[in-house]
Order: sequence, then C-alpha cells, then structure tokens
Amino acid sequence: MRIALAQLNYHIGNFEQNEEKIVRAINQAKEAKANLIVFAELAIGGYPAKDLLRNAVFLDQCQQSLSRIATHCDTIDCIIGAPIHNGKEEGKPLSNAAVVLSKGKVQNSYKKSLLPDYDVFDEYRYFEPNRDLHCIELSDLKIALTVCEDLWDNDQDNSYKGDLMLELAQEKPDLIINIAASPFSYVHYEKRIAVLSANALKANAPLIYVNQVGAHTDIIFDGRSLAMTKSASVIAELQAFEEDLQYVTFERGDLHTTVDFRPEELTETARIHQALILGLKDYFSKSGFKKAVLGLSGGLDSAIVAALAVEALGADNVLAVLMPSVYSTEHSLKDALDLVNNTSCQHIVLPIKEIAQSFEDTLSDAFKGLSADTTEENIQARTRGTLLMAISNKFGHILLNTSNKSEAAVGYGTLYGDMAGSLSVIGDVYKTQAYKLAKYINRDREIIPINTIVKPPSAELRPDQKDSDSLPDYAILDAILYQLIELEKAGSEIIHLGFEEQLVRRVTKLVNNAEFKRFQAPPILRVSPKAFGSGRQIPLVAKFSF
Amino acid sequence: MRIALAQLNYHIGNFEQNEEKIVRAINQAKEAKANLIVFAELAIGGYPAKDLLRNAVFLDQCQQSLSRIATHCDTIDCIIGAPIHNGKEEGKPLSNAAVVLSKGKVQNSYKKSLLPDYDVFDEYRYFEPNRDLHCIELSDLKIALTVCEDLWDNDQDNSYKGDLMLELAQEKPDLIINIAASPFSYVHYEKRIAVLSANALKANAPLIYVNQVGAHTDIIFDGRSLAMTKSASVIAELQAFEEDLQYVTFERGDLHTTVDFRPEELTETARIHQALILGLKDYFSKSGFKKAVLGLSGGLDSAIVAALAVEALGADNVLAVLMPSVYSTEHSLKDALDLVNNTSCQHIVLPIKEIAQSFEDTLSDAFKGLSADTTEENIQARTRGTLLMAISNKFGHILLNTSNKSEAAVGYGTLYGDMAGSLSVIGDVYKTQAYKLAKYINRDREIIPINTIVKPPSAELRPDQKDSDSLPDYAILDAILYQLIELEKAGSEIIHLGFEEQLVRRVTKLVNNAEFKRFQAPPILRVSPKAFGSGRQIPLVAKFSF
Repeated sequence: MRIALAQLNYHIGNFEQNEEKIVRAINQAKEAKANLIVFAELAIGGYPAKDLLRNAVFLDQCQQSLSRIATHCDTIDCIIGAPIHNGKEEGKPLSNAAVVLSKGKVQNSYKKSLLPDYDVFDEYRYFEPNRDLHCIELSDLKIALTVCEDLWDNDQDNSYKGDLMLELAQEKPDLIINIAASPFSYVHYEKRIAVLSANALKANAPLIYVNQVGAHTDIIFDGRSLAMTKSASVIAELQAFEEDLQYVTFERGDLHTTVDFRPEELTETARIHQALILGLKDYFSKSGFKKAVLGLSGGLDSAIVAALAVEALGADNVLAVLMPSVYSTEHSLKDALDLVNNTSCQHIVLPIKEIAQSFEDTLSDAFKGLSADTTEENIQARTRGTLLMAISNKFGHILLNTSNKSEAAVGYGTLYGDMAGSLSVIGDVYKTQAYKLAKYINRDREIIPINTIVKPPSAELRPDQKDSDSLPDYAILDAILYQLIELEKAGSEIIHLGFEEQLVRRVTKLVNNAEFKRFQAPPILRVSPKAFGSGRQIPLVAKFSF
Repeated sequence: MRIALAQLNYHIGNFEQNEEKIVRAINQAKEAKANLIVFAELAIGGYPAKDLLRNAVFLDQCQQSLSRIATHCDTIDCIIGAPIHNGKEEGKPLSNAAVVLSKGKVQNSYKKSLLPDYDVFDEYRYFEPNRDLHCIELSDLKIALTVCEDLWDNDQDNSYKGDLMLELAQEKPDLIINIAASPFSYVHYEKRIAVLSANALKANAPLIYVNQVGAHTDIIFDGRSLAMTKSASVIAELQAFEEDLQYVTFERGDLHTTVDFRPEELTETARIHQALILGLKDYFSKSGFKKAVLGLSGGLDSAIVAALAVEALGADNVLAVLMPSVYSTEHSLKDALDLVNNTSCQHIVLPIKEIAQSFEDTLSDAFKGLSADTTEENIQARTRGTLLMAISNKFGHILLNTSNKSEAAVGYGTLYGDMAGSLSVIGDVYKTQAYKLAKYINRDREIIPINTIVKPPSAELRPDQKDSDSLPDYAILDAILYQLIELEKAGSEIIHLGFEEQLVRRVTKLVNNAEFKRFQAPPILRVSPKAFGSGRQIPLVAKFSF
C-alpha cells in the first residue's frame, strides 16, 4: 500500500486556492499510484480560523469544499482534517475531525479527543471533544487515526484523563496516522519526535505524521511531516518550512521507503531564521501586500529585520527609512547606509529634528518649568512612528516592527513609536538570540555591518545613551526573562536559582508594568515555546508581581 | 437560618485588600447573627486572573488567604469562591471551586462542572471540570451548591451534556446557592433572571445568587446579587454596580426577608452609563492612577467620554486637550469649551497646524507629485495622539480613548492617532447608543452642549468633511453592525433580512479590513453581549468576508 504525505500551506478561508492545491496533490498521488493520501489537521478552512468557525457561511463552505474534493477520490482514499458538524447531539456544534474520503464520497470521520487549551490554543472554544475511541478500517488496514494533540496526552498542560494510544493499541492497529497543525517553536521538533516515538512503540505500529506548513499572522507551522517505523525509527521526513509531497509504502506490517528523503538538520538559530522568513512571506502574500517599510536606525534589531525582509520579499520591495535625530551618532547613519548597500534595499532619509522641535514648541507652555525626561524621548520615537505610518499610508507598504523580545518584555520601547507596525518580526527573539541571528545572516557574506553587531546597543534618544544605562547586561536580563516568560517561574523561584534578588525584583516589576504596552503591540511571529501574544495572558489591572 | 449575601469588589492579586474586605463582611455578618455568609465566585485571587493562575506564588497566596479567612469563620459558616488544587488527580491542576469554611477551618469544596469557553471566557485554559455532581450538607440543610455557569447548561454556547440542576434536584435540595462572576452586558440581567428562575422551579427550591461587582480592565460585573423563593419570585436584590451586604432568612422550606431591598430599575442606557462609570473608576483606582487626559474635539464621542470621566474621577482629575487644526470649525472649539465649562474640567489648547506642516515639509520630497489623501488626515490624527501621549508621559495622566463602536467596527479611525489611549471608554457603544447616552448624561442639566448633539458628526480632517461622506447613516450602519457583531450573522444572512446588498457587502468588507487596527486597540469597557476584544477573535490574515 502506497501512501502519500501531502504537506501544504493553507490560507484561512481561501477555499478556492486551498482546494486547488489539495486536488492537485490528489491528482499527483493518483498518477504516482498511491492508494491513500493524507493531509493535515483542519486543511479544510485553515487553522487557526478562530471565530470564523462560528460563521454559518464559513462552515457551509467547509462542507462544500470537502464534498467537491471527495469527487476526486475515486482510485485513491484520502484522510483530511476539517471542522464537521456534530448533528443533533448536545454540546458544541463542531468537532475537529479527520475525515475519510473514498469512492468519490465523504465517508466516516474520526473526531479529535484531546483539545488543547493552553498557550495559543483554545480549541474548547469551538469543538466538542470525542469520547468514543476506536480504530478505523481502511483498505484492509486497521488504522489508529488521531488528530494532533490526541498523541500528546502526557503533556502537563493537558486535561485528558487516561492514555489515548494505550486504549487504541488494544485494537492492535496496523498503522497510526496523526494529522496535525502543530505550531513551530525552536524546541518543538525534538519534543514531537519523542512523543511520536513513544506512541509508535506503545502501539507497536508504524506512524505517519502529516503537519501543516506555513504562517498565519503570528503562528508558524514548520511542516517536517514524517514516517516512522514500528521501532520508532524515522525513515522519511518532509521539508521544513516548505510544501512537500512524498510517498511511503506500508507492507509486511511496517512502513518502508525506497528514496531517502529528509531535510538537512537545522540549528536553533537556523530554525528561527527560516521560521521568520516564512512568517514574513506568508504575512505579505496572504494579506495581499508586496512591499514593506521599516525604520532603520543603524542598530542591530532594525538591521536584522531589514535583512530578513529583503530575503523574504526581495530588495525592491523593502523600503528602509533612516530618521536621524540630533542625538543620532555619525556612525549610526553610516551603519544604516552600509546595510542598505549590503542588501540593495530601497531607502530614504527623513531627519526628525524639525518635527521634534515643532512638538516641543507647541508643548512649551504646557511643560514650562519642567525638565526634559522620557517624554521628549518618546516624542522622537512617535515622530518616527508617524513618518513611517505616513509612508505606509501613502504607498501601501506594510510597516514592519523591529522590537526584540527583551525590549518588549521590560517595556523598553515607545507605544505608537518604535512599537508601531503591522507585524513584529523579531518580537519573540531575545537580544542575545538576535546577535546569533545576525551572525547567521552573515554566514556567507557581510549583510549586517560588523559595526552594527559589535557596538554597544543604544536607543539614541538622548546624548550618549546606552541600553546598559537603564537595563542590565542582556545576557543576565535574557536569562531572567527566560525563567519568567518561557518557564513561567515566579520571582521568588528565580531568586532561588541564584539570580540577584534586587535585579530579579526590578525585572519582574518592569515586565509587569509593561503589560499595558504589550496589549497594544502588533502580532509577533512566534518562534519560542512562549511568545508574547495570545499564548500569554496577564490581567492589565492587577496587583501582583510575579 | 440567617444568610448574608456579600457582594464585594475584588482586585485581582491584591490579597491584602481583598482579605480585609472579606473579613470585615464576615465580622459584620457575625454581629448581625448570620449563620452563613456567601461570597462570589473566585473572590479569592480575583476574576479574571488569567495566566496568574499558572503562577505558583499566586496560587500559594490564594491558599494562604483562604486559610486565614477560615480562622474568622467560627460562629458562622462561609461559602466563598477560590481556585483550588486538584491534588494528584490527572488533568488540569486546578478547579474553580465553591469552598466551605466552617469551625475555623477550610472544609469541603464543590467544584464547577460547566466551564464556559465562549466569548470572553476561557476557563478550560485553567480548570478541570467537575464530573461528580452532589449536594452538600451544611447546618442541617441540603444545598445544591453551584458555581456561575453550572446553572447555564441550556445556553447554546455550552458543551455540557445533560441538565445539571435536574441531576442535583433528585437529591431534593433545600436551597440552591450559586456563586458567580458573571460579566455585565446591557441585556444580561433579564437572561440571568430567566435562568435562575428556571433552576429554582426545576429543583423546587429557593435560590441565593451572589455575584461579583466591579471592573477589571474591560470586564465589568454589575453585582445585583439576589434571593429568590422556590416559586422563583425575587424577594431581595442587592445594589447594581456597588458593593452591598444584605441578609435573608431560610425557614419553613423557603427564603424570606423582613426588609425590602432592591435597586431601582435601570433602562438600557442607564445600565450602560453606570457600567462605564464603574469601569472608569476601577481602572484608575486598581491601577493606582488618579488623573485622565483626553482629546476634546467638540464632537459627541469625546464630549461623552469627558463627561463620564468627570463623573467617575472628579473635574480636577480630568484634563481635556483641545487641538484645533486648520480644518476645525469655529463652532467645534466653542462646543469643546462649552463642555469644559459645563463640567468644570481642566483644559489646555494645543493647535496642531505647525506640527502637521512640519511633517508635510519633511515628507515633501518623498511625496513629491502625489496628491493629498487620507495620509495627511492620519498625520493630523497622529500629531494629536503624540501630543496627548506627551502630556500623559509628562504628568502621569492616563490617556482615555474616545472611539465609539461604530467607528471601531468599520475602521473609521487612525491607528496611533485617535485610536490611542490606555482604555477605550465607549468602544462598545454604537454611535446611535452614544446619542442616547448623551441625552441621559444631560438628564438633569446640559452637560454635553446641545450643539454637540445636534450637529452632523465630522472628523474634521479635511474641509467640510462629514462622517456621512464616507459612511452610511448611523441608524442603518449600526443595525447592520449589530447583526454582524452581536448576532454573528454572515453577510448573506443579513442581506436576507432585507438590508441593501451592496451596503452590506461594503460594511462587511470594512469590518474585515479593520481587524488589524482593532488588534492594536486599547482594552474596551465591555457593555454589550459581544464587544471587540478577547470575546471576538478573527484571524488577521485570512481570505474570508463575513
């Protein structure tokens, strides 16, 4: 039995395009004499469709699309993810299902049991969990058909009671199929392999895993669909961050492949890099935009975002705006221009001195007798934000935000100023990771100017300002933030680890006080296991310091 | 048996203050010879505490607070809501429980079965649902103890299978107690009464309902805790939008009261008004701020927000900033000044002409040969946003946003301009509702200038601009939006109702295209059953028009 693994990039609600892709894959698989083709979780409609799943027309289109696709499944069977109506049962009206298409028709479906509702997940919002576990029969095979989280029942964040695969294993399945829409993080791959392996071994059955690939605003899927033998050896893995279609064969009780296909191994930084490129590409293509604008300061963060944007969108589609102030140093302008040269992106220079002065003049009466403080720094940042948005508005370019995760965490940024933008490209990348990313971007040749990498970071909003004036060393700051954000530790627990008490208290306070800023931040491309955004929800008006 | 209903305003994470309030109420009830005192759902810790419920220190403090409060429950029993650990069971580590405090100790607890996960709710994110239904025994009474949503099992958005009260009713309870944190909307009260009545009749038992009161950023609780006889007659109702402590007596199988206490009936507009006042008050007091700043244009929305802020915070604590441009009409400035006079709030005037000119000069090369469009309008709005934020930064005033729901829906507003602010006061109030609200605010005397109410709405961003140039009549627009947002209808369903097809298509497109703006909007005080914010989640990068 020849099985096709179809790893596609879906666009939420774009039924026509998704269907065309799916049918094309089915036809290819038919030509390749495959007996079965497997698509990802919620391939129909796209994931995460969120409250579109409450829209009657959206759901109708899902059903119609499924029926049309089924007509192509004559000489081939198909397993594909879709939201399906639960009929007249009580409870939520929908299930997240793996649907079997066969003999030209929609046949049975298997509903997801384990609905994730932690981090960025909120599947209980839409779906009723399945409570009826059983294998399905297809082409004389007994298949343990599961949907993504169904195999993650040991995860601490899950509420499922019991061991789903252990129950299915009692039916002695020939094959496990897991269709998934499993968001990328730079540590997720190893966890995934461990979970899938454990399940294959538990059921003593080979396993096929088909994941989505592509980005949906903040959430990125890395693909890397795979086939694993009953002894949990990965015999085939599809491309990372790209569409792919490959075949394996089930015979003599196990999976086999004649061609060795698997992507090259990726370091943490390489994974982040590829994820961000895909995140950028898909944000633009799926929202129908081509061109990006961003502020280029000469510093590390904006240089990285510019380099990534040029790689994702092309140099002609990236406009860098240099907005020097009276506090900008000579080398900043030079570093920014070097980056422009190295990437061949477009650029303009808009000095902000006059506008900032005009703000200060207008406010001079209101601020009489008061000394300059962060207010005046914020005016500079907001002047830049307004200039960038004017260019975005006039030319239809999307403004890319250039804040990093360390800044976003401690609130070292100006709301409506440097926090402006439609998409935050590196808002889930700590400053220490940003340095690694810069070096990775420079792996073949100097794209990010060396001086940008080696000089001390500065916001240049007052004379001789350095980040280190108001923030601890990034190595220490990021280590504390990792405990606080990714590991969700309380301040006292972090102090217990040996970090300096006063510093931890200061950092936790900064993080708490910046919640109101992050509430209004752009969506952030998620590359870590805990990004700012919907996956981390802290009340704004509370009196509690971590 | 004398029962105290304690309706308090909790502050999330402020254990000291909450505990002080709770203990004070316990002591008052003891003096009043009550045998039992009932507090709201998640009174311990506050609701919604969101991901603070994943913080070990936060949870420890909940347990400690509960134990300390229990020591005061010697001559009185107490029922209070708290997050409690589930011990070594599988599944989520927490339950949302009604805890019984008695004989100076934490006794048993009853866990919530029905976890809401629609609209603003996400309780599956934190809690394991109870699956073991039974009544509790307390002071010789059999009590059907339930937590909020437990009684809402007929709601279409719920996934509970079965009828919870029908199961509990088989044990023939003497009394139903429901502790709640049930968010306000202007239509919620009638639904609540219907649901509680149905449950009292079903179990043939009287019912005590204790709700939270107070606002937590966007979510507002209206209180209105009540006691209902077994024949579903409301015999007592606590204050709306205020803390309250009242007593009823259980004897001869039913509830009784000697004093007739209930708040005055409130119209829809009066409810919205009181909710917004409480929302404002609590946002400031709970975040430790006193003073507000806002832009006052002479138009309806900013006038309403200024009037509400003065009522909530006091005239001395409200600074109105008048920022006329070259397009501002003479009457706008006069209308704004009339509002300042009527409310006695503080004000300053900051003309924006010079700054806007300075932006246009700086951009003149980049925009050479291009005609003026919304870019230049947005520059004016962002100039105002930057001035307001400068005042906010310099003086520590919180910037109030003045957008209404109609504007927020169709994207008739400038991101980082008039969409700026820490809190959106009337972002859940349609323009047609705003007119009613203005008249209500003027019920005793003219606060909002009549001219502000009667003149045609205009953003005044270009000569002779009127809202009606680019938007349909607000009566029709709001009617379509209500179908789209509150009732979650698809465009085709709305056309079916008789609205003009082209108009519906245009409005749905505007609403879709504005998702990216609303993503970065401030939190919005929620007064309707479907507000923009966490209760309505639409993917940003999708290709689907409602």
